[in-house]
Amino acid sequence: MRIGGEHRRTVWLAADGRTVLTFDQTRLPHELPVIALERLADAARAIREMQVRGAPLIGAIAAYGVALAMRADPSDAALEEACATLAATRPTAVNLRWALERMRAVLAPLPPGQRESRAYAEAAAISEEDVAICRAIGERGLPLLEAVARRKRPGEPVRVLTHCNAGWLATIDWGTATAPIYLAHRKGIPVHVWVDETRPRNQGAAITAFELGQEGVPHTVIADNAGGHLMRQGMVDLCLVGTDRVARNGDVANKIGTYLKALAAFDNGVPFYVALPSSTIDWTIRDGSAIPIEERAGEELALVSGRTRDGRIETVRITPDGTACGNWAFDVTPARLVTAFVTERGVCPANEAGLLALFPERAAA
Amino acid sequence: MRIGGEHRRTVWLAADGRTVLTFDQTRLPHELPVIALERLADAARAIREMQVRGAPLIGAIAAYGVALAMRADPSDAALEEACATLAATRPTAVNLRWALERMRAVLAPLPPGQRESRAYAEAAAISEEDVAICRAIGERGLPLLEAVARRKRPGEPVRVLTHCNAGWLATIDWGTATAPIYLAHRKGIPVHVWVDETRPRNQGAAITAFELGQEGVPHTVIADNAGGHLMRQGMVDLCLVGTDRVARNGDVANKIGTYLKALAAFDNGVPFYVALPSSTIDWTIRDGSAIPIEERAGEELALVSGRTRDGRIETVRITPDGTACGNWAFDVTPARLVTAFVTERGVCPANEAGLLALFPERAAA
Repeated sequence: MRIGGEHRRTVWLAADGRTVLTFDQTRLPHELPVIALERLADAARAIREMQVRGAPLIGAIAAYGVALAMRADPSDAALEEACATLAATRPTAVNLRWALERMRAVLAPLPPGQRESRAYAEAAAISEEDVAICRAIGERGLPLLEAVARRKRPGEPVRVLTHCNAGWLATIDWGTATAPIYLAHRKGIPVHVWVDETRPRNQGAAITAFELGQEGVPHTVIADNAGGHLMRQGMVDLCLVGTDRVARNGDVANKIGTYLKALAAFDNGVPFYVALPSSTIDWTIRDGSAIPIEERAGEELALVSGRTRDGRIETVRITPDGTACGNWAFDVTPARLVTAFVTERGVCPANEAGLLALFPERAAA
Repeated sequence: MRIGGEHRRTVWLAADGRTVLTFDQTRLPHELPVIALERLADAARAIREMQVRGAPLIGAIAAYGVALAMRADPSDAALEEACATLAATRPTAVNLRWALERMRAVLAPLPPGQRESRAYAEAAAISEEDVAICRAIGERGLPLLEAVARRKRPGEPVRVLTHCNAGWLATIDWGTATAPIYLAHRKGIPVHVWVDETRPRNQGAAITAFELGQEGVPHTVIADNAGGHLMRQGMVDLCLVGTDRVARNGDVANKIGTYLKALAAFDNGVPFYVALPSSTIDWTIRDGSAIPIEERAGEELALVSGRTRDGRIETVRITPDGTACGNWAFDVTPARLVTAFVTERGVCPANEAGLLALFPERAAA
């Protein structure tokens, strides 16, 4: 997708073919510096400190993290350490572990001398596959927006509410929840996106608003509190969000607050769609109660960063000194509130039968 | 209630008996300067710019605003102008207009020469009555918390979730939603309050957390997004919020986001109580669809104020430059999601019959 009119991806290699380049997303929406990952520790830190975020991008950076580790030391011990270190960075995202398992499965049987180049090739393959998957999610989801557009008067936009950032900056390109939106916009379908601010880290206000703006998609940032009111007022045609992990029964772990929007959508008859690459499905867990919910530092809530009037990036405390803050990063939306999943293979009901109809190879799992 | 261990109210008179003193709440939680209101315009500005907020406090400041106007000019024209000016400051709060009607009804029949002193007396009476009403709400609501406490193991707190600030800083003393909490705490019942941050103005993080802290009530600030997760996890015993206007059928207008918490409470079998003085009931409207929802400047969402590490109060922008922000200040929670109202006359079902059983004098209205 575009930044400053130029097409970019979220991860690429430096001229040396080995240094991994990505964006530090923590200074968005005001700055988006490129950072160089030279070592395993750089990749782990980038994930842990959320310089990179979003399940697919985390998976790709983890894969490249293994490659960086193999570059320094291709031993069995180093491979195990790399996988363990990277797996510990974020507990909820399932395709972090999916990517690590894939890297391990490919690399472990190889003699150490072949691991570095194979690791880079595999990380690149994971990235390319993600682009193709996101594009496919876009194509599969596009008819949902087109169907709404057909019911509108000419020029009236399809109004989509989204939460957090399941955009291209959370993936390699296109995004998951944003892919149908970007495709619709490029096809000339009028779209307007309600962008949930997404406290406490403001990924909506900072990242989704940034990327929609760079791509030219009309949008309005709203408080996380506002979506219910908009739905009651008939101002939302559909909700479209991403996910960090889907259980076998269709329960959805996503950014904290997703559940509240799903409740409001259900209460108002607004379709609630979840876009996901199939790597996000955790076939090993029966339902959402088995998904661990990451608790992060309360300071993420107490401290807000942004740009001052005179152009400095500054951090301010919004709570009284010493006040306890609770910070659960995700919640679980029960499958009963989800209208449908949008996957790279198509749209399906949010339940085990629906998922298995699209992914029959998982029936035995 | 207490600030720095001293008992304070939110509005009082200077030594001259005429200048109205109150707190500028816009710099909370870090500073709480006293401001002097000398003229009608000062009172109108304090309400419009939300230096004072909360339906009961707005009513009292509006009443004193009329008194300040009468001090400058006790003519009929000045009385009408004062009421019109003050009524225009905030469209949703019903007891702003209630207080102005009361002032007008008392003052209009009087000869101008008697209006100033009577206006101050009436504003003082409104304030005293509000203290008594809030205290009564506390006493009526206390049994709801005591009932939960009886089911707990010794020392286990009653866990209350609240949204925005319906605390004593929104009233003259005690608060509405906080009054049962403060009374329970003073009686030695262990209480823990989940404080919704309450974007976009952060009244929970800034004001409710401040006053609970000053009073010594244990609490944790959470993102507005988090309450649904907490309720699903069984970590909330009851929700208790205030309201800006209640329709005759029991629909509740309150700070944007209240509806989402009510949905989550309903979905999880958590009681959802709304505390209100009866002046908040708008007997003239059948249901919540008739309540005007104030839209405020988008900058309230885009700009966040707080204290920097080196102690300055600073404002930072959290959205990309030029991004549109939508800012609806209230939403309407349908009566079907409200377990009960807590009023100064008792607890009642959230419907017309319930309200009329407590306020039978309104049956003919």
